[in-house]
Amino acid sequence: MKFLARIKVTLKPTINDPQGKTIAQGLGRLGFDSIESLRAGKYFEVTLEEQDRSVAETKVREMCEKLLANPVIELFSFDLEPVGETAATR
Amino acid sequence: MKFLARIKVTLKPTINDPQGKTIAQGLGRLGFDSIESLRAGKYFEVTLEEQDRSVAETKVREMCEKLLANPVIELFSFDLEPVGETAATR
Repeated sequence: MKFLARIKVTLKPTINDPQGKTIAQGLGRLGFDSIESLRAGKYFEVTLEEQDRSVAETKVREMCEKLLANPVIELFSFDLEPVGETAATR
Repeated sequence: MKFLARIKVTLKPTINDPQGKTIAQGLGRLGFDSIESLRAGKYFEVTLEEQDRSVAETKVREMCEKLLANPVIELFSFDLEPVGETAATR
């Protein structure tokens, strides 16, 4: 089965985010004066072929822990969705 | 009212994504051999104070169009959620 994982990686709330601060300042200069905070993170869309949802979930978690996120300073979350290719179209 | 916007910015599907390709190769070398595609993007969490949801939505869309995304090569999507601070706690 094919799955699409949508993965968000964010800095832990206690970690300073200079990139986010700079972007918030930039938005402020453009006239957006209602921003209280802005945190910048990463986003990945991964399509993978696994036998079932639980295997896919384990794999995506491992990818995050080993490469996509730095577990010391970052948090990750993802959702998983089966995609296209019903049995009929194979 | 305070809102949290979760914004995803991705490259348009027709745009080449060398960063995503490199990450996919790195995962392949780590033994993840079931990846069919990987696209890298950006993720932002913005907290903003606006009078209602529709104003907040308009503001977030403008932020994306003017600074957070490059509309020539990127797409953006977001969801908006009212946060904390009920009238009672003010």
